[in-house]
Amino acid sequence: KHILIVPGDGIGQEVTEVGKAVLVKIAEKFGHEFSYDEALMGHVAIEATGNPLPDETLEKMRNSDAILFGAVGHPKYDNDPTAKVRPEQGLLKMRKELGLYANLRPIKLFDELLGASSIRPEILKGSDILFFRELTGDIYFGEKGRKNDNNTAYDIAEYSRYEVERIARKAFEAARTRGKRLCSVDKANVLETSRLWREVVQALAPEYPDITVEHQFVDAAAMMLIKDPKRFDVVVTANLFGDILTDEASQIAGSMGMLASASVGDSTGVYEPIHGSAHDITGKGVANPLASVLSAALLLDISFGLKEESEAIISAVDKLLKDGFRTRDIADATTPADKILNTQQAG
Amino acid sequence: KHILIVPGDGIGQEVTEVGKAVLVKIAEKFGHEFSYDEALMGHVAIEATGNPLPDETLEKMRNSDAILFGAVGHPKYDNDPTAKVRPEQGLLKMRKELGLYANLRPIKLFDELLGASSIRPEILKGSDILFFRELTGDIYFGEKGRKNDNNTAYDIAEYSRYEVERIARKAFEAARTRGKRLCSVDKANVLETSRLWREVVQALAPEYPDITVEHQFVDAAAMMLIKDPKRFDVVVTANLFGDILTDEASQIAGSMGMLASASVGDSTGVYEPIHGSAHDITGKGVANPLASVLSAALLLDISFGLKEESEAIISAVDKLLKDGFRTRDIADATTPADKILNTQQAG
Ligand SMILES: CC(C)[C@H](C(=O)O)[C@@H](O)C(=O)O
Ligand SMILES: CC(C)[C@H](C(=O)O)[C@@H](O)C(=O)O
Repeated sequence: KHILIVPGDGIGQEVTEVGKAVLVKIAEKFGHEFSYDEALMGHVAIEATGNPLPDETLEKMRNSDAILFGAVGHPKYDNDPTAKVRPEQGLLKMRKELGLYANLRPIKLFDELLGASSIRPEILKGSDILFFRELTGDIYFGEKGRKNDNNTAYDIAEYSRYEVERIARKAFEAARTRGKRLCSVDKANVLETSRLWREVVQALAPEYPDITVEHQFVDAAAMMLIKDPKRFDVVVTANLFGDILTDEASQIAGSMGMLASASVGDSTGVYEPIHGSAHDITGKGVANPLASVLSAALLLDISFGLKEESEAIISAVDKLLKDGFRTRDIADATTPADKILNTQQAG
Repeated sequence: KHILIVPGDGIGQEVTEVGKAVLVKIAEKFGHEFSYDEALMGHVAIEATGNPLPDETLEKMRNSDAILFGAVGHPKYDNDPTAKVRPEQGLLKMRKELGLYANLRPIKLFDELLGASSIRPEILKGSDILFFRELTGDIYFGEKGRKNDNNTAYDIAEYSRYEVERIARKAFEAARTRGKRLCSVDKANVLETSRLWREVVQALAPEYPDITVEHQFVDAAAMMLIKDPKRFDVVVTANLFGDILTDEASQIAGSMGMLASASVGDSTGVYEPIHGSAHDITGKGVANPLASVLSAALLLDISFGLKEESEAIISAVDKLLKDGFRTRDIADATTPADKILNTQQAG
């Protein structure tokens, strides 16, 4: 099995190093042979080659069995909306080129972190949500541009039946292995893409009679996620809504620093923290590496089918937390100073 | 001054009755002469005339000085994405026809309701956010439709410089009268409309040197609203992002049942609760009328410049809460049964 490591920008570098170290350790412990390679992407790739996703990187990605990914982005582009070459273009191109249409984001709170969230513990306790965010369509990939002498901007959102069906099927199937409830989130009272989305999900439902299907408008869902997160089991939604809702839902897990995601499609899979490049803390050694470590666990489970190995990682994280160790983002006033870890130690 | 009452659908009827009663009372107490008329909109208008916003209603709206609005919507359309005539069309048409481009949503927690939110009191305490949601542009009003034999759906998001500038100015000016901080929310790392949005806000900033301007991506903002709501003062954002974020932010105020909004532009203003028609509780007499009451307060303040009258209403709501009275949505286990009010009583 061949794993490509793509640390990307900012804290992506620091945390992916730890994620990789865990893969090396697991391979050793369980007697697997993984080979590794590394490639550039994002701002670091622009600096080196002028291209946020160099052909060489894309080629290496296609030849991998799975990719452990960090983050891309740099504040310098955020404040320059007119920049023509941007780190995120690499990310979007990777998703499209590799056909990574399904982004899975499990949101589960480790019991030890009940205190780290801004939401009340009694509301949180027992929350366990699996998001399926569509990742290669919607307003992210439609035509966009300017007109009227640069005075009007537009973005086209688009979905085909086929695109909705394949992500919805993945979500229905996942619901079967879990709480058997599927919530499809859209804005069908306003958007035509959402009306198509809802039609397709409704048409599939009879094939999954064991699954209870609910449809929610995105505004109501954004509210309900905070008011009553236990109400959700599997959630399926479009690219843009998924982007917003999963970041919001990270608060259910106490910190973005704890959340891993898997982007899969027809071939290789990309495993990455949902946090970004976080340049404000880059290089300080305080980044929480657990999202990358948990991304490694997802990689073993989903791309390699190595359930036991994956669970060994999750248990180790659980034990670390039970023993009271914390990185700064999940520490609180009661955490003793000698239990506050830096990035390497947490790994 | 002429006020048009448009109760609309579901609990819109019940709560708007209470909102109007408060206006009548205030006029009496402060010696004002308000005249009233009533008109149909939404599902009730479809049933009566086939049109969610009959011409007669629109005409009455144009001739009003302000409109006290309830809610529109009906579950029957939600489960039928192919319905050609929908209550929401009336709402969107009203916004467009009356030029209501600025939707103001103040999110402020009454101290007595600290316990009603799913967010921890220490995170919430002191939160006070004023949202400016753009209301007549974006993906709500662009061309939308189907192609490829009905197998592909599309929606076009569009913004012109002028549209962004006028809402941004309103937000900058409001920030001047408050905490002097403005957060503009967009998705400029992906959307061209957002890049235009950011350009315009950046270009205006030098005209308001006393205001500290920050730009956030919508995903980060959705997270930060829950993690640290006190970080926000005035927030300005596009139509779709505003829809999602303000519903989410309602949790900061404990309940949607407490939140009023004002939609203003060049002529008359529309004042309405941010909650919807809530058919699940319609007719049970349990709906919280305070959002409609607070909408009446906003109406007096913004459309009529009657600050004292507006504050009298807010104080009365505050006193009601301080005296321990609650409708069901904001009651908790400690609320004694004799302090639980129905809709009329709360009015
Ligand atoms: C960086 C950005 C383009 C990206 C997205 O919006 O998809 C990120 O927010 C994510 O969720 O992976
Ligand atoms: C009913 C719907 C069309 C509307 C919107 O999305 O604008 C509502 O959610 C609102 O916020 O007023």
